[in-house]
Amino acid sequence: MTDKAARRAKFEAVYAVIRDELIEHFAGEGMPEEAVEWYRKNLNYNVPGGKLNRGMSVVDTVEILKGRALDEDEYFKAAVLGWCIELLQAYFLVADDIMDASITRRAQPCWYRLPSVGMIAINDSFMLEAAIYRLLKTHFRGQAYYADLLDLFHETTYQTEMGQLVDLITAPEDKVDLSKFSLDRHHTIVIYKTAYYSFYLPVACAMLFSNIPSSQEHIYAHAKSILLPLGEYFQTQDDFLDYSATPEVLGKIGTDIVDNKCSWVVNTALLLTSEGGGKGYTAEEKREMRNILDENYGRKDAGAEAKVKEVYERLEIRRVYEAYEEKVVRDIKAKIAEIVEIEGGLKREVFESFLGKIYRRSK
Amino acid sequence: MTDKAARRAKFEAVYAVIRDELIEHFAGEGMPEEAVEWYRKNLNYNVPGGKLNRGMSVVDTVEILKGRALDEDEYFKAAVLGWCIELLQAYFLVADDIMDASITRRAQPCWYRLPSVGMIAINDSFMLEAAIYRLLKTHFRGQAYYADLLDLFHETTYQTEMGQLVDLITAPEDKVDLSKFSLDRHHTIVIYKTAYYSFYLPVACAMLFSNIPSSQEHIYAHAKSILLPLGEYFQTQDDFLDYSATPEVLGKIGTDIVDNKCSWVVNTALLLTSEGGGKGYTAEEKREMRNILDENYGRKDAGAEAKVKEVYERLEIRRVYEAYEEKVVRDIKAKIAEIVEIEGGLKREVFESFLGKIYRRSK
Repeated sequence: MTDKAARRAKFEAVYAVIRDELIEHFAGEGMPEEAVEWYRKNLNYNVPGGKLNRGMSVVDTVEILKGRALDEDEYFKAAVLGWCIELLQAYFLVADDIMDASITRRAQPCWYRLPSVGMIAINDSFMLEAAIYRLLKTHFRGQAYYADLLDLFHETTYQTEMGQLVDLITAPEDKVDLSKFSLDRHHTIVIYKTAYYSFYLPVACAMLFSNIPSSQEHIYAHAKSILLPLGEYFQTQDDFLDYSATPEVLGKIGTDIVDNKCSWVVNTALLLTSEGGGKGYTAEEKREMRNILDENYGRKDAGAEAKVKEVYERLEIRRVYEAYEEKVVRDIKAKIAEIVEIEGGLKREVFESFLGKIYRRSK
Repeated sequence: MTDKAARRAKFEAVYAVIRDELIEHFAGEGMPEEAVEWYRKNLNYNVPGGKLNRGMSVVDTVEILKGRALDEDEYFKAAVLGWCIELLQAYFLVADDIMDASITRRAQPCWYRLPSVGMIAINDSFMLEAAIYRLLKTHFRGQAYYADLLDLFHETTYQTEMGQLVDLITAPEDKVDLSKFSLDRHHTIVIYKTAYYSFYLPVACAMLFSNIPSSQEHIYAHAKSILLPLGEYFQTQDDFLDYSATPEVLGKIGTDIVDNKCSWVVNTALLLTSEGGGKGYTAEEKREMRNILDENYGRKDAGAEAKVKEVYERLEIRRVYEAYEEKVVRDIKAKIAEIVEIEGGLKREVFESFLGKIYRRSK
């Protein structure tokens, strides 16, 4: 087994423990056998099958902050926090798939699409969220930072839901209106819908677990000032790869254009074809390209998609992306360099590790 | 204005304050104007229009426990807790209406049925839940019982979702199978889906607010031992009134039979027509009545509904209900009498007040 596979297997082993713990508690409340089996299936179908980057990054971050390998109990507890983030993600994804009318997720039908499940999936998503607080209570009730941990999960959940709302009303799949789009709107959606829960939450969990007190607000604020831009950079990359990567490399076919996604790519194209932006084009050329975008974006039609991609090529979005990437990475590195490493505080390596996994990734 | 109307108006005035507080925070996060308006509409449409019994009972209970009228700040804080319960209820109802494919709620179309809303209602329900924790943090973060309050809301939410799951898989609207029904199953559903959040939660909130420490577990356990049966009694009454009350008195037309609801009435009929139950009938008569139930329950057909009601009449369900009511009220009164009233502890009046509002109600 590779080192990476072993790391994943170790983290996955903790899932089996907490799942059994949740099921045992549920059954212990006197729930009928049929409901117990349903809940088990809900957990197994929706929680463990992803990339697990968010969850595992809690453990990694704790190891870096402590500067040593974790003992068995420390590893288990840090992994429980990691699985709480994976549960939060599962809660969002089960519901998002219904709202987006998605067909598949992680190479299997979306949970709500199973004929026996349907709209019961909504209550199932609620129960995935409730499982978080059951686990936190069981494993962290006695800690001084318990209320901080709850506050952190609550706030992050709320932020993600805010981002999801803005995304849903900005880019409904069935009603294209590019006048609602902008890089500013993209920034709001990405920070709230993705960066808080995917980047800030794992590190903040690890910081609380490592006993960095929440009263040291400037330390948490500094971490946030690095992790939110990092999360935005990650999602912007995702948007860019959806358009630019070949399906062989990406492992899936990009659908952002036909799905009317409020992607970094289309927002950049909108900026470059606007009056103020895109210096190399005449007003006439800009109007023409903008019309092509308005008429073809978000249509379920390969020809329309190709026309949008032609505009992207004409605008040399690839070069714009490369310049964006170099700038954002420079800014993030500068903020990492500002960290003053003191005993029991932050460490630069936490962020360098995140950045290293992301920088110039191709899938 | 009547005393009751004034009481309601005072409680409703607090809603306007917390709604504005939530909106102000949301807008302060930099959310676009369109999203701010959406959230305001979500709150106004779904939170304040109910009977408000759950929310107002927090304030009433605090007044009884303190044995005096509340000052302005105490009233406001107790009312915030009450509105948190109303938010929890709104969270459940918005989602339940989607899961049950309901048409109207509180004399207006269900939120998800508004053409502009649709499945975005799922995320809107999430945001109603998130609002609870935002309010608790703003108004109770400094209290010694803050973590207890969060635990209480988490546990109650989870319990309600457990009950909803059991209800959904026991009585799906489109697949009638009375072999899944039983009074035992009815008990599980009612306790978990209704009694915890509607009866135990308001009183437990009031007890924490009145500084009855959660470490006094036996006091909370005693309250629960009264309030869960009281909640079950309330729901059983609801089930019975759906069948027995005239629409003029009830204010709506009962639909439990056609909707395949796992109601106390059908479960009692199933018991009375089973081998062991219902002493006055021959085995032949029981089989005949049971067949009528199996063939007609849960059908969208007035003729089928009438046949089910005929069986109910034959079985004299009204008399069974009256006997049930007298017994359960006697048991509840006995448990209330067991309360030892000490300074800073429980008071019998809390429960007598609840019981007085429910006993022999006709709507």
